[in-house]
Amino acid sequence: MHIKSLKKCSTTKARAGEFETAHGKVKTPVFMPVGTVGSVKSLSPHDLVDTGSQVILGNTYHLLLRPGMDVIKSAGGLHRFMSWERPILTDSGGYQVFSLGHLNEITETGVIFQSNLDGSRHELSPEISTDIQRVLGADIVMAFDECTAYPATESLARESMALTHRWEKRSLEHFRKTEALHGFDQHLFGIVQGSVYEELRKACAAALVDMGFDGYAIGGLSVGEPKEDMYAMTDVVTDILPNDQPRYLMGVGKPEDMVRAVALGVDMFDCVLPTRNARHGIMFTWKGPVSVKAAREKFNHEPLDQNCSCYTCENFTRSYLRHLFKANELLVYRLASIHNIHFYHELMTAMRKAILEDSFADFQKRFFEHYHLKRAE
Amino acid sequence: MHIKSLKKCSTTKARAGEFETAHGKVKTPVFMPVGTVGSVKSLSPHDLVDTGSQVILGNTYHLLLRPGMDVIKSAGGLHRFMSWERPILTDSGGYQVFSLGHLNEITETGVIFQSNLDGSRHELSPEISTDIQRVLGADIVMAFDECTAYPATESLARESMALTHRWEKRSLEHFRKTEALHGFDQHLFGIVQGSVYEELRKACAAALVDMGFDGYAIGGLSVGEPKEDMYAMTDVVTDILPNDQPRYLMGVGKPEDMVRAVALGVDMFDCVLPTRNARHGIMFTWKGPVSVKAAREKFNHEPLDQNCSCYTCENFTRSYLRHLFKANELLVYRLASIHNIHFYHELMTAMRKAILEDSFADFQKRFFEHYHLKRAE
Repeated sequence: MHIKSLKKCSTTKARAGEFETAHGKVKTPVFMPVGTVGSVKSLSPHDLVDTGSQVILGNTYHLLLRPGMDVIKSAGGLHRFMSWERPILTDSGGYQVFSLGHLNEITETGVIFQSNLDGSRHELSPEISTDIQRVLGADIVMAFDECTAYPATESLARESMALTHRWEKRSLEHFRKTEALHGFDQHLFGIVQGSVYEELRKACAAALVDMGFDGYAIGGLSVGEPKEDMYAMTDVVTDILPNDQPRYLMGVGKPEDMVRAVALGVDMFDCVLPTRNARHGIMFTWKGPVSVKAAREKFNHEPLDQNCSCYTCENFTRSYLRHLFKANELLVYRLASIHNIHFYHELMTAMRKAILEDSFADFQKRFFEHYHLKRAE
Repeated sequence: MHIKSLKKCSTTKARAGEFETAHGKVKTPVFMPVGTVGSVKSLSPHDLVDTGSQVILGNTYHLLLRPGMDVIKSAGGLHRFMSWERPILTDSGGYQVFSLGHLNEITETGVIFQSNLDGSRHELSPEISTDIQRVLGADIVMAFDECTAYPATESLARESMALTHRWEKRSLEHFRKTEALHGFDQHLFGIVQGSVYEELRKACAAALVDMGFDGYAIGGLSVGEPKEDMYAMTDVVTDILPNDQPRYLMGVGKPEDMVRAVALGVDMFDCVLPTRNARHGIMFTWKGPVSVKAAREKFNHEPLDQNCSCYTCENFTRSYLRHLFKANELLVYRLASIHNIHFYHELMTAMRKAILEDSFADFQKRFFEHYHLKRAE
């Protein structure tokens, strides 16, 4: 897998390009909405296409527990199960095993954990995770890694990284030995760990590049560390990753973080923030996040954003959205999610345009002049 | 308001026609989805048009409490507030006042009640209800009546009917004295009460026809009385109502009841059943209701109905819908509602077609041969 038509900014590390998958082309920088349990919460595939979604994410952990691999396999994979025709990236399941806190045992082989839903025991390993993602039919499969807890001492982070290397190598070997089940090619990304330690991040990136993945993710960030550490680690890693392959900063993020990360050479993002915030009435605009539930919106018969072309802004007012939130009307979770996902994609489109016109530094400056980080509070 | 292009069945009292409102034509028989608090639960205006909705209902009681008339008035009426360009019928608010059980006082003037949300006190009367529906900008305004409790003795029902006559007369007078606020014509329907007493129903229908409304509703049915009483009262009333004006059976209903009522000369229906059942996984098909949450659907990769042309059936399987229900995914409430509302409209379209071809009796026979009333259980 290669980044094609790569255009690099002359003053930052920002890049625009595109890559191919069996389910179509993806233009970068790209934001991937999170389809946790087989749907991007409240949105239909049609809504996703309409908002400009090029590729979505599926969570191995959640799909393994519900509906289970037997169902998805018999459906012919996740694309067919959820009626999504564009690319899908699935994670390895590791992050949820570590973060949802029902981990029973971790050995060299892998992990044994209990479902957060019914307590049932399950196993994940580099081989099992790869097999599951084969069944899901992800266009992009993620290697199985240990997500280092934050904070971690350097020696713990080093140990964790070493395990991650062995696991990712097994992921790669197993991926190469196994075949796609649903008649199309899949790709495997490695994940750079190393906590907030520059030397570890460098060593990890170099080791993974040496193994030779189709693309590279930066993991273990946006987990509570200072923002400056997140940017510094990203900066260090993108210096080492191959220019002609995609780079994915996992679990990021906020608009301001994505703009900073694009400047540091990241191509791909995912985050539950736009959909989760939408369900709480926090809407993203170019002026910053806005709480549409606020009393000041009661008689505001203007759209969220006059210039926004999403279905929500073209048809509904802030007053109406506020009313729907106050009345707990189901419709509003979708309308709000449509706007936020559309905004995230528009942000990516604007960055891509700026990079292609070699005006990204200007874009970044203007973005931070207008975007108020805390307006919603 | 007149029913145009009226075509009558030669063997039953079924009729097909159309009537005009300021927001467009309505072809009958017609089912009106219920937009309780300013949205048909989980559905956007686009979804409603897509499923074939011609006219929707709004609830005066709920809209009065949330968002309040000040908000809707400043928005320019309910159409603009909720971005719905087709006709709206609003009820008078009386039914909820009586059924939600926070009624404080009932006098000749009207009712005083407390909000079921915050206990605040409100008043409704023929004049106030009419004024509110003027503000809402309903294409069809309902007269303010007393919804007779069931069961009621004949003498109580007679007393209640007499009050209803006085209230409906005041509604009509106030409606004639007041003007539409939003620049388009509104119409007023009277409501026939009389509980399950044939003589009362006849007297009430005659009295209302004498007053001269734009259309006539049959109220106080589907409130717990035996089905046969509901059909009998409907039959009695439609014999008296003018042929060339619309007839609306309020709060009905189930597919089987609507088929029976069309055969008795009813043109219009509303009910929360298709959307409420959808949210509980009960889906309507030509074979009867189906519970898509059932274990038997786990591996069923067929749509709900192979021949259905709704967005849900064209894109998603029973297995997927079941999964979304099990995972409490928001998307499914919309997908299920789309199918059920589409089914209700298809049922109306099929009846209309049968009437126009003068084969309604055949249609009715075939419908009951295939439709299993209790399949979901």
